[in-house]
Amino acid sequence: MNDTVMSPAASDLRTGREARLACRRGRLTGSTAGVAPGYVQGNLAVLPKDLAADFLRFCQANPKPCPVIGVSDAGDPRVPALGADLDIRTDLPGYRVWKDGALVEETPDVSAWWRDDLVAFVLGCSYSFEEALIADGIPMRHIERGIRVPMYRTNIACTPAGPFAGPMVVSMRPLTPAHAIRAIQITSRYPAVHGAPVHIGLPEAIGIEDIAKPDHGDAIEVRPDELPVFWACGVTPQAVIAAVKPPFAITHAPGSMLVTDLANRHFALL
Amino acid sequence: MNDTVMSPAASDLRTGREARLACRRGRLTGSTAGVAPGYVQGNLAVLPKDLAADFLRFCQANPKPCPVIGVSDAGDPRVPALGADLDIRTDLPGYRVWKDGALVEETPDVSAWWRDDLVAFVLGCSYSFEEALIADGIPMRHIERGIRVPMYRTNIACTPAGPFAGPMVVSMRPLTPAHAIRAIQITSRYPAVHGAPVHIGLPEAIGIEDIAKPDHGDAIEVRPDELPVFWACGVTPQAVIAAVKPPFAITHAPGSMLVTDLANRHFALL
Repeated sequence: MNDTVMSPAASDLRTGREARLACRRGRLTGSTAGVAPGYVQGNLAVLPKDLAADFLRFCQANPKPCPVIGVSDAGDPRVPALGADLDIRTDLPGYRVWKDGALVEETPDVSAWWRDDLVAFVLGCSYSFEEALIADGIPMRHIERGIRVPMYRTNIACTPAGPFAGPMVVSMRPLTPAHAIRAIQITSRYPAVHGAPVHIGLPEAIGIEDIAKPDHGDAIEVRPDELPVFWACGVTPQAVIAAVKPPFAITHAPGSMLVTDLANRHFALL
Repeated sequence: MNDTVMSPAASDLRTGREARLACRRGRLTGSTAGVAPGYVQGNLAVLPKDLAADFLRFCQANPKPCPVIGVSDAGDPRVPALGADLDIRTDLPGYRVWKDGALVEETPDVSAWWRDDLVAFVLGCSYSFEEALIADGIPMRHIERGIRVPMYRTNIACTPAGPFAGPMVVSMRPLTPAHAIRAIQITSRYPAVHGAPVHIGLPEAIGIEDIAKPDHGDAIEVRPDELPVFWACGVTPQAVIAAVKPPFAITHAPGSMLVTDLANRHFALL
Protein backbone atom coordinates (compact mmCIF):
# COMPACT_ATOMS: atom_id res chain seq x y z
CA MET A 1 0.00 0.00 0.00
CA ASN A 2 1.23 3.48 -0.86
CA ASP A 3 0.28 5.64 2.11
CA THR A 4 0.55 8.85 0.10
CA VAL A 5 -2.30 7.88 -2.23
CA MET A 6 -5.43 9.33 -0.65
CA SER A 7 -8.10 8.04 -3.02
CA PRO A 8 -7.03 4.89 -4.77
CA ALA A 9 -9.12 3.91 -7.76
CA ALA A 10 -11.25 0.92 -6.78
CA SER A 11 -9.48 -1.07 -9.48
CA ASP A 12 -6.11 -0.42 -7.80
CA LEU A 13 -7.21 -2.46 -4.78
CA ARG A 14 -6.08 -5.92 -5.69
CA THR A 15 -6.76 -8.00 -2.59
CA GLY A 16 -9.37 -8.23 0.13
CA ARG A 17 -6.86 -6.95 2.65
CA GLU A 18 -5.97 -3.93 0.50
CA ALA A 19 -9.66 -3.11 0.10
CA ARG A 20 -10.36 -3.42 3.84
CA LEU A 21 -7.37 -1.25 4.76
CA ALA A 22 -8.51 1.38 2.25
CA CYS A 23 -11.93 1.37 3.94
CA ARG A 24 -10.39 1.50 7.41
CA ARG A 25 -8.29 4.53 6.42
CA GLY A 26 -11.26 6.26 4.85
CA ARG A 27 -9.90 5.95 1.34
CA LEU A 28 -12.62 3.75 -0.10
CA THR A 29 -16.13 4.96 0.63
CA GLY A 30 -18.24 3.93 -2.38
CA SER A 31 -19.16 0.77 -4.20
CA THR A 32 -16.95 -2.29 -4.02
CA ALA A 33 -17.97 -3.38 -7.53
CA GLY A 34 -14.77 -4.19 -9.40
CA VAL A 35 -12.65 -4.04 -6.24
CA ALA A 36 -10.17 -6.88 -5.67
CA PRO A 37 -11.28 -9.14 -8.52
CA GLY A 38 -11.33 -12.80 -7.54
CA TYR A 39 -12.01 -12.12 -3.85
CA VAL A 40 -15.30 -13.01 -2.21
CA GLN A 41 -17.46 -10.05 -1.19
CA GLY A 42 -20.24 -10.28 1.33
CA ASN A 43 -23.42 -8.61 2.54
CA LEU A 44 -23.37 -7.49 6.19
CA ALA A 45 -26.13 -7.78 8.78
CA VAL A 46 -25.45 -6.99 12.44
CA LEU A 47 -28.09 -7.81 15.03
CA PRO A 48 -28.36 -7.92 18.84
CA LYS A 49 -27.61 -11.31 20.32
CA ASP A 50 -31.21 -11.96 21.34
CA LEU A 51 -32.26 -11.90 17.67
CA ALA A 52 -29.13 -13.55 16.29
CA ALA A 53 -30.08 -17.16 16.94
CA ASP A 54 -33.41 -16.80 15.13
CA PHE A 55 -31.73 -14.97 12.26
CA LEU A 56 -29.13 -17.68 11.87
CA ARG A 57 -31.90 -20.25 11.92
CA PHE A 58 -33.69 -18.25 9.23
CA CYS A 59 -30.53 -18.24 7.10
CA GLN A 60 -30.03 -21.96 7.62
CA ALA A 61 -33.58 -22.60 6.45
CA ASN A 62 -33.21 -20.31 3.43
CA PRO A 63 -29.68 -20.90 2.15
CA LYS A 64 -30.29 -19.66 -1.38
CA PRO A 65 -31.19 -16.05 -0.46
CA CYS A 66 -29.20 -16.12 2.81
CA PRO A 67 -25.92 -18.01 2.31
CA VAL A 68 -23.98 -17.40 5.53
CA ILE A 69 -20.22 -17.27 4.96
CA GLY A 70 -19.20 -15.88 8.35
CA VAL A 71 -20.58 -15.12 11.82
CA SER A 72 -18.84 -13.23 14.63
CA ASP A 73 -18.88 -14.06 18.31
CA ALA A 74 -21.23 -11.77 20.23
CA GLY A 75 -19.53 -8.42 20.80
CA ASP A 76 -16.49 -9.43 18.77
CA PRO A 77 -15.93 -7.29 15.65
CA ARG A 78 -13.58 -9.87 14.13
CA VAL A 79 -14.50 -12.65 11.68
CA PRO A 80 -11.18 -14.47 11.30
CA ALA A 81 -12.59 -17.01 8.86
CA LEU A 82 -13.01 -14.20 6.33
CA GLY A 83 -9.85 -12.19 6.98
CA ALA A 84 -7.03 -12.41 9.51
CA ASP A 85 -7.13 -8.77 10.61
CA LEU A 86 -10.73 -8.05 9.67
CA ASP A 87 -12.60 -5.48 11.79
CA ILE A 88 -16.25 -5.47 10.85
CA ARG A 89 -16.70 -1.94 12.33
CA THR A 90 -14.34 -0.19 9.95
CA ASP A 91 -13.57 -2.44 6.99
CA LEU A 92 -16.57 -1.73 4.79
CA PRO A 93 -16.85 1.46 2.71
CA GLY A 94 -20.18 2.41 4.25
CA TYR A 95 -22.81 1.29 6.73
CA ARG A 96 -26.41 1.95 7.56
CA VAL A 97 -27.48 2.06 11.21
CA TRP A 98 -31.09 1.22 12.04
CA LYS A 99 -33.23 1.69 15.17
CA ASP A 100 -36.68 0.14 15.35
CA GLY A 101 -36.61 -0.27 11.59
CA ALA A 102 -35.75 3.38 10.86
CA LEU A 103 -32.48 4.47 9.24
CA VAL A 104 -30.70 6.68 11.78
CA GLU A 105 -27.28 7.11 10.23
CA GLU A 106 -25.28 6.34 7.10
CA THR A 107 -21.60 6.29 8.04
CA PRO A 108 -18.23 4.89 6.91
CA ASP A 109 -17.37 3.70 10.45
CA VAL A 110 -19.64 2.10 13.06
CA SER A 111 -17.05 1.89 15.87
CA ALA A 112 -19.08 4.39 17.89
CA TRP A 113 -22.19 2.21 17.51
CA TRP A 114 -20.56 -1.10 18.43
CA ARG A 115 -21.95 -2.95 21.46
CA ASP A 116 -21.01 -6.04 23.42
CA ASP A 117 -24.20 -7.84 22.40
CA LEU A 118 -23.88 -7.45 18.62
CA VAL A 119 -23.42 -10.40 16.28
CA ALA A 120 -22.20 -9.79 12.71
CA PHE A 121 -23.43 -11.97 9.86
CA VAL A 122 -21.71 -11.97 6.49
CA LEU A 123 -23.70 -13.43 3.59
CA GLY A 124 -22.37 -14.39 0.16
CA CYS A 125 -23.27 -12.16 -2.76
CA SER A 126 -23.83 -12.43 -6.47
CA TYR A 127 -20.55 -10.71 -7.40
CA SER A 128 -18.85 -14.09 -6.94
CA PHE A 129 -21.03 -16.05 -9.33
CA GLU A 130 -21.17 -13.18 -11.82
CA GLU A 131 -17.38 -13.31 -11.99
CA ALA A 132 -17.57 -17.03 -12.78
CA LEU A 133 -20.22 -16.44 -15.46
CA ILE A 134 -18.26 -13.64 -17.13
CA ALA A 135 -15.10 -15.76 -17.03
CA ASP A 136 -17.06 -18.41 -18.94
CA GLY A 137 -18.07 -15.91 -21.63
CA ILE A 138 -21.63 -15.32 -20.47
CA PRO A 139 -22.47 -11.63 -20.80
CA MET A 140 -23.96 -9.77 -17.81
CA ARG A 141 -25.89 -6.92 -19.38
CA HIS A 142 -26.33 -4.84 -16.22
CA ILE A 143 -22.57 -4.85 -15.71
CA GLU A 144 -21.89 -3.96 -19.36
CA ARG A 145 -24.33 -1.07 -19.01
CA GLY A 146 -23.01 0.02 -15.61
CA ILE A 147 -26.43 -0.21 -13.97
CA ARG A 148 -27.76 -2.18 -10.99
CA VAL A 149 -29.20 -5.65 -11.50
CA PRO A 150 -33.03 -5.62 -11.49
CA MET A 151 -34.56 -7.19 -8.36
CA TYR A 152 -38.11 -8.33 -7.67
CA ARG A 153 -40.19 -9.32 -4.67
CA THR A 154 -41.69 -12.73 -5.46
CA ASN A 155 -44.55 -14.86 -4.17
CA ILE A 156 -42.00 -17.45 -2.97
CA ALA A 157 -42.29 -17.46 0.83
CA CYS A 158 -39.10 -17.93 2.80
CA THR A 159 -39.23 -20.53 5.56
CA PRO A 160 -39.88 -18.46 8.71
CA ALA A 161 -37.79 -18.64 11.90
CA GLY A 162 -38.87 -16.73 15.01
CA PRO A 163 -39.83 -13.22 13.92
CA PHE A 164 -38.00 -13.52 10.59
CA ALA A 165 -40.29 -14.19 7.64
CA GLY A 166 -41.17 -12.75 4.29
CA PRO A 167 -40.99 -13.21 0.54
CA MET A 168 -37.86 -14.09 -1.38
CA VAL A 169 -36.35 -11.26 -3.41
CA VAL A 170 -34.69 -12.34 -6.65
CA SER A 171 -32.29 -10.74 -9.10
CA MET A 172 -32.84 -11.21 -12.84
CA ARG A 173 -30.35 -11.60 -15.67
CA PRO A 174 -31.58 -12.00 -19.26
CA LEU A 175 -29.78 -14.82 -21.07
CA THR A 176 -30.15 -16.80 -24.28
CA PRO A 177 -31.33 -20.37 -23.63
CA ALA A 178 -27.86 -21.81 -24.25
CA HIS A 179 -26.30 -19.30 -21.87
CA ALA A 180 -29.07 -19.94 -19.34
CA ILE A 181 -28.31 -23.67 -19.33
CA ARG A 182 -24.59 -23.00 -18.93
CA ALA A 183 -25.27 -20.40 -16.19
CA ILE A 184 -27.33 -22.98 -14.27
CA GLN A 185 -24.41 -25.40 -14.48
CA ILE A 186 -21.85 -22.82 -13.35
CA THR A 187 -23.83 -21.27 -10.49
CA SER A 188 -24.80 -24.73 -9.21
CA ARG A 189 -21.12 -25.01 -8.26
CA TYR A 190 -21.42 -21.99 -5.94
CA PRO A 191 -24.04 -22.72 -3.26
CA ALA A 192 -22.27 -20.33 -0.86
CA VAL A 193 -23.07 -17.39 -3.12
CA HIS A 194 -26.77 -18.01 -3.94
CA GLY A 195 -26.12 -21.12 -6.06
CA ALA A 196 -28.34 -22.18 -8.95
CA PRO A 197 -31.22 -20.01 -10.14
CA VAL A 198 -34.54 -20.41 -8.36
CA HIS A 199 -36.59 -19.72 -11.47
CA ILE A 200 -36.38 -19.32 -15.22
CA GLY A 201 -38.61 -18.06 -17.96
CA LEU A 202 -42.04 -17.45 -16.44
CA PRO A 203 -41.96 -14.31 -14.23
CA GLU A 204 -45.71 -14.41 -13.54
CA ALA A 205 -45.35 -17.87 -12.00
CA ILE A 206 -43.39 -16.34 -9.11
CA GLY A 207 -45.61 -13.28 -8.74
CA ILE A 208 -43.72 -10.82 -10.93
CA GLU A 209 -46.39 -8.86 -12.76
CA ASP A 210 -44.23 -6.57 -14.86
CA ILE A 211 -40.65 -7.56 -15.63
CA ALA A 212 -40.02 -3.97 -16.78
CA LYS A 213 -40.71 -2.65 -13.27
CA PRO A 214 -38.26 -4.12 -10.76
CA ASP A 215 -38.85 -3.45 -7.06
CA HIS A 216 -35.15 -2.63 -6.60
CA GLY A 217 -32.29 -1.85 -9.00
CA ASP A 218 -32.66 -0.83 -12.61
CA ALA A 219 -34.90 -2.17 -15.35
CA ILE A 220 -33.26 -4.16 -18.14
CA GLU A 221 -34.92 -5.51 -21.27
CA VAL A 222 -35.39 -9.22 -21.99
CA ARG A 223 -34.94 -9.66 -25.75
CA PRO A 224 -37.13 -12.02 -27.79
CA ASP A 225 -34.32 -14.57 -28.02
CA GLU A 226 -33.70 -14.52 -24.26
CA LEU A 227 -35.20 -15.91 -21.08
CA PRO A 228 -35.24 -14.05 -17.77
CA VAL A 229 -33.20 -16.09 -15.27
CA PHE A 230 -33.83 -15.47 -11.57
CA TRP A 231 -31.41 -15.99 -8.67
CA ALA A 232 -32.17 -15.66 -4.97
CA CYS A 233 -30.92 -12.25 -3.85
CA GLY A 234 -29.15 -10.93 -0.78
CA VAL A 235 -31.75 -8.17 -0.54
CA THR A 236 -34.05 -10.87 0.90
CA PRO A 237 -32.50 -10.87 4.41
CA GLN A 238 -32.32 -7.07 4.36
CA ALA A 239 -36.04 -6.85 3.58
CA VAL A 240 -36.83 -9.49 6.20
CA ILE A 241 -34.81 -7.64 8.85
CA ALA A 242 -36.47 -4.35 7.89
CA ALA A 243 -39.90 -5.93 8.35
CA VAL A 244 -38.98 -7.15 11.84
CA LYS A 245 -37.93 -3.60 12.84
CA PRO A 246 -35.35 -4.80 15.37
CA PRO A 247 -34.49 -2.30 18.12
CA PHE A 248 -30.98 -2.06 16.66
CA ALA A 249 -29.26 -3.24 13.48
CA ILE A 250 -26.38 -2.38 11.18
CA THR A 251 -26.15 -3.29 7.50
CA HIS A 252 -23.74 -2.47 4.69
CA ALA A 253 -24.64 0.56 2.59
CA PRO A 254 -25.98 -0.55 -0.81
CA GLY A 255 -23.13 -1.73 -3.03
CA SER A 256 -20.57 -1.25 -0.24
CA MET A 257 -19.72 -4.82 0.60
CA LEU A 258 -17.20 -6.51 2.85
CA VAL A 259 -14.25 -7.71 0.75
CA THR A 260 -12.81 -10.89 2.27
CA ASP A 261 -9.54 -12.80 1.96
CA LEU A 262 -11.34 -15.77 0.40
CA ALA A 263 -11.00 -16.52 -3.30
CA ASN A 264 -14.16 -16.89 -5.34
CA ARG A 265 -12.69 -19.99 -6.97
CA HIS A 266 -12.38 -21.67 -3.59
CA PHE A 267 -16.15 -21.45 -3.25
CA ALA A 268 -16.61 -23.74 -6.24
CA LEU A 269 -17.98 -27.11 -5.14
CA LEU A 270 -16.15 -28.96 -7.91
CA MET B 1 -32.78 -67.79 -15.91
CA ASN B 2 -35.67 -70.18 -16.02
CA ASP B 3 -35.44 -71.94 -19.38
CA THR B 4 -39.05 -73.03 -19.28
CA VAL B 5 -40.37 -69.46 -19.38
CA MET B 6 -40.94 -68.74 -23.04
CA SER B 7 -42.12 -65.11 -22.92
CA PRO B 8 -40.91 -63.36 -19.82
CA ALA B 9 -42.56 -60.07 -19.06
CA ALA B 10 -40.09 -57.28 -19.83
CA SER B 11 -40.20 -56.33 -16.16
CA ASP B 12 -39.00 -59.82 -15.17
CA LEU B 13 -35.69 -59.17 -16.89
CA ARG B 14 -33.62 -57.71 -14.11
CA THR B 15 -30.13 -57.40 -15.60
CA GLY B 16 -28.55 -56.54 -18.89
CA ARG B 17 -27.39 -60.12 -19.28
CA GLU B 18 -30.89 -61.49 -18.65
CA ALA B 19 -32.30 -59.09 -21.23
CA ARG B 20 -29.69 -59.99 -23.84
CA LEU B 21 -30.17 -63.74 -23.29
CA ALA B 22 -33.94 -63.29 -23.64
CA CYS B 23 -33.33 -61.54 -26.97
CA ARG B 24 -30.85 -64.19 -28.10
CA ARG B 25 -33.39 -66.95 -27.36
CA GLY B 26 -36.16 -65.05 -29.13
CA ARG B 27 -38.08 -64.42 -25.95
CA LEU B 28 -37.87 -60.62 -26.00
CA THR B 29 -38.79 -59.06 -29.30
CA GLY B 30 -40.37 -55.70 -28.48
CA SER B 31 -39.48 -52.53 -26.65
CA THR B 32 -36.80 -52.53 -23.99
CA ALA B 33 -38.51 -49.71 -22.09
CA GLY B 34 -38.70 -50.80 -18.47
CA VAL B 35 -36.37 -53.77 -19.00
CA ALA B 36 -33.55 -54.24 -16.47
CA PRO B 37 -34.01 -50.99 -14.55
CA GLY B 38 -30.71 -49.37 -13.63
CA TYR B 39 -28.84 -50.81 -16.62
CA VAL B 40 -27.58 -48.63 -19.45
CA GLN B 41 -29.36 -49.12 -22.76
CA GLY B 42 -27.93 -48.04 -26.07
CA ASN B 43 -28.80 -47.18 -29.66
CA LEU B 44 -27.14 -49.37 -32.32
CA ALA B 45 -25.62 -48.30 -35.61
CA VAL B 46 -23.62 -50.79 -37.71
CA LEU B 47 -21.68 -49.52 -40.72
CA PRO B 48 -19.10 -50.88 -43.14
CA LYS B 49 -15.52 -50.20 -42.10
CA ASP B 50 -14.92 -47.67 -44.87
CA LEU B 51 -17.60 -45.39 -43.38
CA ALA B 52 -16.85 -46.16 -39.75
CA ALA B 53 -13.93 -43.78 -39.28
CA ASP B 54 -15.92 -40.81 -40.56
CA PHE B 55 -18.93 -41.81 -38.47
CA LEU B 56 -16.83 -42.05 -35.33
CA ARG B 57 -15.34 -38.66 -36.14
CA PHE B 58 -18.90 -37.33 -36.57
CA CYS B 59 -19.84 -38.70 -33.14
CA GLN B 60 -16.71 -37.27 -31.56
CA ALA B 61 -17.58 -33.84 -32.95
CA ASN B 62 -21.22 -34.08 -31.85
CA PRO B 63 -21.12 -35.78 -28.45
CA LYS B 64 -24.49 -34.51 -27.24
CA PRO B 65 -26.62 -36.21 -29.93
CA CYS B 66 -24.06 -39.00 -30.53
CA PRO B 67 -22.53 -40.14 -27.23
CA VAL B 68 -20.51 -43.25 -28.14
CA ILE B 69 -20.42 -45.79 -25.32
CA GLY B 70 -18.98 -48.73 -27.27
CA VAL B 71 -17.40 -49.62 -30.64
CA SER B 72 -16.64 -53.10 -31.95
CA ASP B 73 -13.58 -54.18 -33.86
CA ALA B 74 -14.28 -54.55 -37.58
CA GLY B 75 -16.06 -57.84 -38.20
CA ASP B 76 -16.24 -58.64 -34.48
CA PRO B 77 -19.80 -58.88 -33.11
CA ARG B 78 -18.61 -58.52 -29.53
CA VAL B 79 -18.38 -55.30 -27.50
CA PRO B 80 -16.80 -56.55 -24.27
CA ALA B 81 -16.82 -53.10 -22.67
CA LEU B 82 -20.63 -53.26 -22.60
CA GLY B 83 -21.16 -56.92 -21.72
CA ALA B 84 -18.87 -59.91 -21.23
CA ASP B 85 -20.77 -62.29 -23.51
CA LEU B 86 -22.46 -59.69 -25.66
CA ASP B 87 -23.20 -60.64 -29.30
CA ILE B 88 -24.40 -57.60 -31.19
CA ARG B 89 -26.01 -59.82 -33.89
CA THR B 90 -28.54 -61.49 -31.60
CA ASP B 91 -28.77 -59.57 -28.34
CA LEU B 92 -31.22 -56.83 -29.31
CA PRO B 93 -34.97 -57.51 -29.56
CA GLY B 94 -35.13 -56.26 -33.15
CA TYR B 95 -33.06 -54.80 -35.96
CA ARG B 96 -33.52 -52.91 -39.18
CA VAL B 97 -31.31 -53.74 -42.16
CA TRP B 98 -30.70 -51.01 -44.74
CA LYS B 99 -29.26 -51.06 -48.27
CA ASP B 100 -28.54 -47.76 -50.02
CA GLY B 101 -30.78 -46.02 -47.53
CA ALA B 102 -33.78 -48.31 -48.04
CA LEU B 103 -35.17 -50.61 -45.34
CA VAL B 104 -34.77 -54.16 -46.61
CA GLU B 105 -35.60 -56.22 -43.54
CA GLU B 106 -36.85 -55.95 -39.99
CA THR B 107 -35.61 -58.95 -38.04
CA PRO B 108 -34.85 -60.17 -34.50
CA ASP B 109 -31.47 -61.61 -35.56
CA VAL B 110 -28.91 -60.20 -38.01
CA SER B 111 -26.48 -63.15 -37.89
CA ALA B 112 -27.25 -63.91 -41.52
CA TRP B 113 -26.40 -60.32 -42.49
CA TRP B 114 -23.13 -60.08 -40.55
CA ARG B 115 -19.96 -59.36 -42.52
CA ASP B 116 -16.25 -59.17 -41.78
CA ASP B 117 -16.11 -55.45 -42.55
CA LEU B 118 -18.90 -54.29 -40.21
CA VAL B 119 -18.28 -52.02 -37.23
CA ALA B 120 -20.92 -51.74 -34.51
CA PHE B 121 -21.45 -48.44 -32.68
CA VAL B 122 -23.46 -48.25 -29.48
CA LEU B 123 -24.65 -44.79 -28.46
CA GLY B 124 -26.05 -43.76 -25.07
CA CYS B 125 -29.78 -43.09 -24.85
CA SER B 126 -32.15 -40.95 -22.85
CA TYR B 127 -33.53 -43.87 -20.81
CA SER B 128 -30.51 -43.47 -18.52
CA PHE B 129 -31.03 -39.80 -17.71
CA GLU B 130 -34.80 -40.21 -17.49
CA GLU B 131 -34.26 -42.81 -14.80
CA ALA B 132 -32.12 -40.31 -12.87
CA LEU B 133 -34.75 -37.59 -13.28
CA ILE B 134 -37.60 -39.82 -12.13
CA ALA B 135 -35.52 -41.00 -9.16
CA ASP B 136 -35.19 -37.31 -8.20
CA GLY B 137 -38.97 -36.81 -8.32
CA ILE B 138 -39.15 -35.05 -11.67
CA PRO B 139 -42.17 -36.32 -13.60
CA MET B 140 -41.74 -37.51 -17.18
CA ARG B 141 -45.14 -36.99 -18.74
CA HIS B 142 -44.58 -39.15 -21.84
CA ILE B 143 -43.67 -42.09 -19.60
CA GLU B 144 -46.66 -41.52 -17.30
CA ARG B 145 -48.89 -41.47 -20.38
CA GLY B 146 -47.20 -44.45 -22.01
CA ILE B 147 -46.45 -42.55 -25.21
CA ARG B 148 -43.22 -41.77 -27.07
CA VAL B 149 -41.26 -38.63 -26.27
CA PRO B 150 -41.86 -35.88 -28.88
CA MET B 151 -38.86 -35.24 -31.15
CA TYR B 152 -38.11 -32.34 -33.48
CA ARG B 153 -35.69 -31.56 -36.27
CA THR B 154 -33.96 -28.29 -35.37
CA ASN B 155 -31.99 -25.60 -37.17
CA ILE B 156 -28.93 -26.56 -35.09
CA ALA B 157 -26.40 -27.95 -37.58
CA CYS B 158 -24.25 -30.84 -36.44
CA THR B 159 -20.53 -30.50 -37.10
CA PRO B 160 -20.02 -32.50 -40.32
CA ALA B 161 -17.43 -35.27 -40.77
CA GLY B 162 -16.88 -36.84 -44.19
CA PRO B 163 -20.30 -37.59 -45.66
CA PHE B 164 -22.05 -37.34 -42.29
CA ALA B 165 -23.89 -34.07 -41.75
CA GLY B 166 -27.33 -32.79 -40.92
CA PRO B 167 -29.49 -31.07 -38.33
CA MET B 168 -29.65 -32.05 -34.68
CA VAL B 169 -32.83 -33.82 -33.63
CA VAL B 170 -33.99 -33.05 -30.08
CA SER B 171 -36.44 -34.63 -27.67
CA MET B 172 -38.72 -32.40 -25.57
CA ARG B 173 -39.94 -32.80 -22.01
CA PRO B 174 -42.26 -30.16 -20.49
CA LEU B 175 -41.16 -29.16 -17.00
CA THR B 176 -41.94 -26.46 -14.46
CA PRO B 177 -39.11 -23.92 -14.15
CA ALA B 178 -37.95 -25.39 -10.82
CA HIS B 179 -37.93 -28.92 -12.27
CA ALA B 180 -36.18 -27.63 -15.41
CA ILE B 181 -33.36 -26.14 -13.32
CA ARG B 182 -33.01 -29.37 -11.36
CA ALA B 183 -33.16 -31.44 -14.56
CA ILE B 184 -30.31 -29.37 -16.03
CA GLN B 185 -28.24 -30.08 -12.91
CA ILE B 186 -28.97 -33.80 -12.97
CA THR B 187 -28.47 -34.43 -16.69
CA SER B 188 -25.24 -32.39 -16.65
CA ARG B 189 -23.84 -35.29 -14.64
CA TYR B 190 -24.53 -37.72 -17.52
CA PRO B 191 -22.59 -36.56 -20.60
CA ALA B 192 -22.43 -40.16 -21.87
CA VAL B 193 -26.21 -40.22 -22.28
CA HIS B 194 -26.85 -36.86 -24.01
CA GLY B 195 -25.93 -34.73 -20.98
CA ALA B 196 -27.44 -31.33 -20.28
CA PRO B 197 -30.26 -29.94 -22.40
CA VAL B 198 -29.29 -28.07 -25.56
CA HIS B 199 -32.20 -25.63 -25.34
CA ILE B 200 -34.98 -24.41 -23.10
CA GLY B 201 -38.06 -22.30 -23.45
CA LEU B 202 -38.00 -20.81 -26.95
CA PRO B 203 -38.76 -23.52 -29.56
CA GLU B 204 -38.81 -21.05 -32.45
CA ALA B 205 -35.21 -20.07 -31.68
CA ILE B 206 -34.07 -23.55 -32.77
CA GLY B 207 -36.37 -23.76 -35.76
CA ILE B 208 -39.35 -25.55 -34.22
CA GLU B 209 -42.40 -23.90 -35.73
CA ASP B 210 -45.14 -25.83 -33.96
CA ILE B 211 -44.40 -27.55 -30.67
CA ALA B 212 -47.67 -29.48 -31.06
CA LYS B 213 -46.38 -31.18 -34.21
CA PRO B 214 -43.26 -33.22 -33.47
CA ASP B 215 -41.33 -34.73 -36.40
CA HIS B 216 -41.07 -38.05 -34.53
CA GLY B 217 -42.81 -39.53 -31.49
CA ASP B 218 -46.03 -38.27 -29.98
CA ALA B 219 -47.26 -34.76 -29.26
CA ILE B 220 -47.44 -33.70 -25.64
CA GLU B 221 -48.80 -30.43 -24.27
CA VAL B 222 -46.69 -27.77 -22.58
CA ARG B 223 -48.82 -26.26 -19.81
CA PRO B 224 -48.82 -22.53 -19.05
CA ASP B 225 -46.70 -23.07 -15.95
CA GLU B 226 -44.12 -25.16 -17.83
CA LEU B 227 -41.21 -24.64 -20.18
CA PRO B 228 -40.31 -27.03 -22.99
CA VAL B 229 -36.85 -28.45 -22.29
CA PHE B 230 -34.91 -29.91 -25.21
CA TRP B 231 -32.22 -32.58 -25.12
CA ALA B 232 -30.06 -33.78 -28.02
CA CYS B 233 -31.59 -37.03 -29.28
CA GLY B 234 -30.23 -40.34 -30.52
CA VAL B 235 -32.46 -40.06 -33.57
CA THR B 236 -29.89 -37.54 -34.85
CA PRO B 237 -27.30 -40.15 -35.93
CA GLN B 238 -30.05 -42.33 -37.38
CA ALA B 239 -31.30 -39.42 -39.50
CA VAL B 240 -27.74 -38.53 -40.53
CA ILE B 241 -27.00 -42.13 -41.56
CA ALA B 242 -30.28 -42.31 -43.47
CA ALA B 243 -29.35 -39.16 -45.39
CA VAL B 244 -25.97 -40.65 -46.39
CA LYS B 245 -27.72 -43.77 -47.78
CA PRO B 246 -24.76 -46.05 -47.05
CA PRO B 247 -24.59 -49.19 -49.22
CA PHE B 248 -25.22 -51.25 -46.08
CA ALA B 249 -26.23 -50.50 -42.49
CA ILE B 250 -27.95 -52.10 -39.52
CA THR B 251 -29.74 -50.20 -36.75
CA HIS B 252 -31.85 -51.22 -33.77
CA ALA B 253 -35.60 -51.33 -34.38
CA PRO B 254 -37.30 -48.31 -32.76
CA GLY B 255 -37.47 -48.80 -28.99
CA SER B 256 -35.56 -52.08 -29.14
CA MET B 257 -32.27 -51.10 -27.57
CA LEU B 258 -29.17 -52.97 -26.54
CA VAL B 259 -29.25 -53.57 -22.78
CA THR B 260 -25.72 -53.51 -21.39
CA ASP B 261 -24.03 -54.70 -18.19
CA LEU B 262 -23.22 -51.10 -17.22
CA ALA B 263 -25.10 -49.37 -14.42
CA ASN B 264 -26.69 -46.00 -15.15
CA ARG B 265 -25.32 -44.70 -11.85
CA HIS B 266 -21.78 -45.44 -13.02
CA PHE B 267 -22.29 -42.97 -15.84
CA ALA B 268 -22.72 -40.12 -13.36
CA LEU B 269 -19.75 -37.76 -13.53
CA LEU B 270 -20.01 -36.92 -9.85
